[in-house]
Order: sequence, then C-alpha cells, then structure tokens
Amino acid sequence: MGLKFTVVAKDESTRARAGILHTPHGDVETPIFMPVGTAGAVKAMTQAQLEEVGAQIILANTYHLYMRPGHERVRELGGLHRFMSWPHPILTDSGGFQVMSLKGLGKVTEDGVWFRSHLDGSPHFFSPERVIEFQLALGADILMPLDECVDYPASHETLRRSVRLTGRWADRSQKFFRENAESSQPRAGEGPGKEKLGPSLFGIVQGGTDWKLRQESAMEIGEIGFDGYAIGGLSVGEPKDELYGVTERVAGSLPEDQPRYLMGVGTPEDLVRCVALGVDMFDCVMPTRNARNGCVFTSTGKLSIKSARYAQDTAPLDAACGCLVCRRYSRAYIRHLFSAGEMSAAMLATYHNLWFYLDMMKRVRQSLRFGGFGKFLAGVQSDAEAESRLA
Amino acid sequence: MGLKFTVVAKDESTRARAGILHTPHGDVETPIFMPVGTAGAVKAMTQAQLEEVGAQIILANTYHLYMRPGHERVRELGGLHRFMSWPHPILTDSGGFQVMSLKGLGKVTEDGVWFRSHLDGSPHFFSPERVIEFQLALGADILMPLDECVDYPASHETLRRSVRLTGRWADRSQKFFRENAESSQPRAGEGPGKEKLGPSLFGIVQGGTDWKLRQESAMEIGEIGFDGYAIGGLSVGEPKDELYGVTERVAGSLPEDQPRYLMGVGTPEDLVRCVALGVDMFDCVMPTRNARNGCVFTSTGKLSIKSARYAQDTAPLDAACGCLVCRRYSRAYIRHLFSAGEMSAAMLATYHNLWFYLDMMKRVRQSLRFGGFGKFLAGVQSDAEAESRLA
Repeated sequence: MGLKFTVVAKDESTRARAGILHTPHGDVETPIFMPVGTAGAVKAMTQAQLEEVGAQIILANTYHLYMRPGHERVRELGGLHRFMSWPHPILTDSGGFQVMSLKGLGKVTEDGVWFRSHLDGSPHFFSPERVIEFQLALGADILMPLDECVDYPASHETLRRSVRLTGRWADRSQKFFRENAESSQPRAGEGPGKEKLGPSLFGIVQGGTDWKLRQESAMEIGEIGFDGYAIGGLSVGEPKDELYGVTERVAGSLPEDQPRYLMGVGTPEDLVRCVALGVDMFDCVMPTRNARNGCVFTSTGKLSIKSARYAQDTAPLDAACGCLVCRRYSRAYIRHLFSAGEMSAAMLATYHNLWFYLDMMKRVRQSLRFGGFGKFLAGVQSDAEAESRLA
Repeated sequence: MGLKFTVVAKDESTRARAGILHTPHGDVETPIFMPVGTAGAVKAMTQAQLEEVGAQIILANTYHLYMRPGHERVRELGGLHRFMSWPHPILTDSGGFQVMSLKGLGKVTEDGVWFRSHLDGSPHFFSPERVIEFQLALGADILMPLDECVDYPASHETLRRSVRLTGRWADRSQKFFRENAESSQPRAGEGPGKEKLGPSLFGIVQGGTDWKLRQESAMEIGEIGFDGYAIGGLSVGEPKDELYGVTERVAGSLPEDQPRYLMGVGTPEDLVRCVALGVDMFDCVMPTRNARNGCVFTSTGKLSIKSARYAQDTAPLDAACGCLVCRRYSRAYIRHLFSAGEMSAAMLATYHNLWFYLDMMKRVRQSLRFGGFGKFLAGVQSDAEAESRLA
C-alpha cells in the first residue's frame, strides 16, 4: 500500500491547503519544498546540514544515479537512503527530463528513449518499465513515471502527440509498478494507522501551455489512478502568467484528496502563489544553483553577494534570517570567500538559501494552520510588484 | 605583554612536553596542530565545523590576506577574528614563504623583497617592518617575522648569507613590533593571572640542513629574544633523517621555557616524532590538501578513497575514528562523491582528516599528561616501518 495524504487545514479564500504525506521513511508536512540532490548529494551540503535547515524530503535524479554509481550498486548497498545516509523520505524523478535534454543524442520511440551518456557517449535505453525498475532499486519513497518533456514553445501537434505518448507510458508505468513494487522495496515503513506503507507512484500531467491538452492529460492520468499527481513541463521558458494559468487549471482538475506536485518550480514568489493554486510539493535547483553563483535570497529580495558593494558590509546576508550563516558571518566575509574562490562560499550561500526556502515554506504551513495565509500571499505579490517597478 | 607559555608535563625518556599557550583569544593546549586557513578560511570547512573537529588555533596567510581583501580592509572590519568569525587564537605567517616561491618575479634586497602579485602581476614590496604592520592590522595573536627561505638543496654560501639576512631582519622585526604592537592591536585578552595579554612575535631559525648554521641561527635569534621560536625552511624536499636531525638539534638549542614551532610539517608520523624532539606547534596543508585529492588518513595508514576498490565498501573511512563523517558515511558513498565531482567529497574528507590530525594530537597530549607517550611513539615508528616494508 502506497503513500497516505491527509489534509489538515484549508485556506478559505484560495485553494491552498496544509497536509501530511505519510511515507515509508516518515511524515512530510506540506506544502513542502524538496532540495535537489542530483547524484545522491545536495551540492555543497552535508546530510547533517540538510537536517539543520529543516529539509524533510529530498529529490534525487534517477538518470544521474543510474549512470553513477548505478542503480544496481545502490540496491546492493542497501538502497539510496542507506547509501547516502539520509533516513528521511526521498522522491526520485524518472530521468526523463535529463534524457530529453541530451539534445541530438536521443531518440524517442513508442517503446522508450534511446540516448547517449553525457559521461562517455555510450548508448542507453530508458523505457517506462525500466525507469520504475531503477527507482525501485534505489528504494525511493515516491517514484515518477517516464514522461516526454517537449521544448517550449511547441506546436499543438507536437504537444498533442506528446501528451498521448505520456499517457500510454503512464499506463505501462502503473502496471509495472503494481506488479513489482512490493517485491522490490528493501524496507517498508508504517502509516498513521500503523499499516505498512510501501513506495508510491505519482502521475505526471503534460500538455505545455495548451490548456485544453492539459485538461485532457489531467483526465487521462487521473483515470489511470496514482498516489499523487505532478504538473510537468513547466518552468521551461514560458511566461509567468502561463505558469500560473496552467497550474491553476491543472490543479483544479486533480483529485482534492491527493498531493499535487509542481515540478521544477521556482522562485520564492512562485512557490507561495502556486500554493494558493492548490500545489503541495515543489522542487527546484534555484536555491542551490543560485547560491553557487553568489545569488542569495533574502526577505528584502535577491542580492548578488559577489558585488563589490558588499566588500565592507558587516551585516548578515539577511538581517531577518535566523540561520547559522546569518548568525555568524557578514556579507563582507562571504563576498571575500567568493572573491578568493573558496569552496566555503558555496557552502555558506547554499546553507542560507535552503534555509530561506524551507523557512518560508514552514511559515506558509503555519499561516495555513493558524491563519494569515492571505496576508502572506498579498505580501509576496506586493513585493514582486515593487521589485518589477524597480527593475 | 605577549604570550605566556606554561609547561604542564614532561616525558621522561624524550624531550616531549605538554603545555598551555595563553593568547589574547584564549588558551591553546600543546603539542598542537594548526589547520591552515590560507585566505581567512580553512578550505571546505565552516568555522562551526572547525570547532567540532577540535581546532584550537588556526594559521592564516598574510600574503593572501594582504592581496585579498587587504589587511587595511580587515582592520576596518574589526580584525581577522571578527572578519572570519573565529573567536579563537590565530597565528599569521609573514608571507615570506609565498613571496619567495613566486619564482622569477621576486628580488631580495637588504631592505626587503620585491615581487609581483600572483593575481594581476602588480609589483609589491614586503619588508620586515611592513609584514609586522600587516599582521598587526589583521590582529593576529601570534605573528611571524619576514625570513628568507631558500630552496633545497642550497650551497653553504647561499645558506650562510640567508641566515645572516634573516637575523638582521629578525632584529628589525622585533624593534618594529615592540614599538607598534601595543597601539595597533584592536583588542587584548587576559593571561592566567588576569594580566593583559597582547600579540606575540616568534623568531624563525633558518640554515637549511647545515647543522652548524642552524645552531648559529638559533643562537642569533635567541639573543634577540622572542615570545617563541620557529624552525623554518624544512619540509622543502630534504630527506626525513635531515628533517628529524635538524629539528632535534635546533629544538635542543632553544630556550626550555618557550614554545617551539616546526613550520610546514608534516605527516602524522612526523608530528609524533617531532613532539618527541621537543616541538610544541605544527602547521601543514597536508590533511586539508590531501583530503581534496581523495587521500584520507586512517589509524591503519593512508588510503586513496577515489580507488575503485572502495566502490562497494560499506565500512567508514576509519573504523577506529569517532568523527561525524565516520559515524554517518561509508567509503562507498564518499568514493561516489569524488567520482561524481561533488563538493561534499572534499567537505567530508577534509572534516575527517582534520579530526584525525587533531584527535591524534589530543591523544599525544593525554599520553604526556597521564603517561604512555613512549608507547605512542613506538607505535608510530613501527607503523612507519611496516608501511615502508610494504612499499
């Protein structure tokens, strides 16, 4: 039996809700942001630091782990949780996004995707069944089925064909998952009623920015039936109003009592706004990747800490932040670490950015449970307007 | 008034002793290993992690901080302790070693050294007075005077000339330090009798592997009078027996009641053997630099964790180690992080290696205070013999 989802609070004016995801490796409070741990490691963070910043669930990339060290090796080593010493929930993606982005190397057929390794050019094949097999070997709590991600913009015909293929693949994924999930999982946890919990499979809705196709996809994926539903193929270059428009319509077409996951999104503002549209789960490389480039999120907006303007600034990255980096280090010092090419620059900036994202989501959850989400949302929107007026 | 040094225990069979260095930023137990924080940061470590692994004092490089962010900027920001948020003791080197190693760019005159920046090729001048000024601006607890480091091997004539120059520079350094130390230091701490403690200046003994010149240098530097004495110009390619031979003779010529610091040394075995020769302080990039290259120190010898032989090894780096890395991660995982080019590979290996060095020195101190140093020393020597038989 897969994941359980309990809605514990709903906002009155929006579709936002707070809930709990029960997984084999423990509960996750939603709405939640999942840090991205590509190769079984969140870049520039230790697992203890992930726990410190309040990460409850992380995302790992099946493609990267399949390539290195290999899903079979991870299985032999006791599964991904044990391998990376992360005893908390893990969601794995299908690898589809990475495979599709290896442009010019891949070929999509009805059966699956042929592509070449980004490491050594060797040929590989991913099918809906194989990527489930990989994720079961990794021992993920939440698995994602192979889907086709098309570039933005795409023609209606391309999108339509892609939605149909994604639908047929979703059906095959679900069949294979049902037949193999129980026997493959290294360990199982317990649910709220102490029933055994196994891994879960989510469905992915595609359809680009074509609202009609998105609704057809949501219907088709919903009819197959999954433990939760993801909105894929966004944050690929489409305008913001399309991101919000599609999310609103798809979220509104998905079952009320199951978790909704918006893949690869986004900025702090995106997260709060999409929570209001009914999204429960997010992942994005933005806080970690931006940190490594010196882009830091603060309660008063982004700042590029490499800038010479911070060379003598003794203030913390964010005076309103309670993280260990903001309690100990100045902007001047972190700016110096970037100038000197020190690894600790990325370490400190990543720690702060993840804290910022996770702390914001914690405050979102609190506002949903104890009131005040409307004010929260209004604040984010007026900040964004102020920032765009300044730009 | 500068540093106080108290010897608290002596080994009966060797010249080893345990002591306490009282500095403006707190006490340091000796024998001690000082992690190297080149640009005001120990590579791949946060300051909280340095505290976790038991670092009591770190070394920072004057040359690097002079270049970036500049000693005057550090002074304006409240000194190096505050700038890097390290409230514990700091020793700064003179920059001489870095400047001399910028081969072909520099020129040594009676007055000081002309050299070009490794960053932009701009010309710079370091004199004995200027490097004291830089280190006072940084606010170091222990300062080192400019000395001339010659390459190994060097002719007797070169070494003789260099020892004389280093002696004259030491004299100028001490004069300048006495005249300026009190007014320049941002803050002062208290000694064991609650007297005010200010910064200290050590003398550096040079002379390559020429024992007679080394003794002359020790005499000359000792007559000027410093708060402690360093042995410089070793670990530059000379054979191990020369390293131990010079260290033994120089340490034996230095005042019994003052700290002795062997610069840039060395392996775990070197440290224990040189403690037996009367050395109290060490610094070396070996644990940190080796870690970044995948070379890990363990109680059973070094291992290259990148090797494929560890790909399925579920043991910790060192089964006898109590560090957080050994408690949480397997060799297989850390090997994977190196393969995948993850920054956390260097982070975890550095953390372990520094713990290994600092924990070893803690056990050395305990054996000196409570007995057993002889056995400790014999163990290190027989390990080294076993390793050389295998090699």
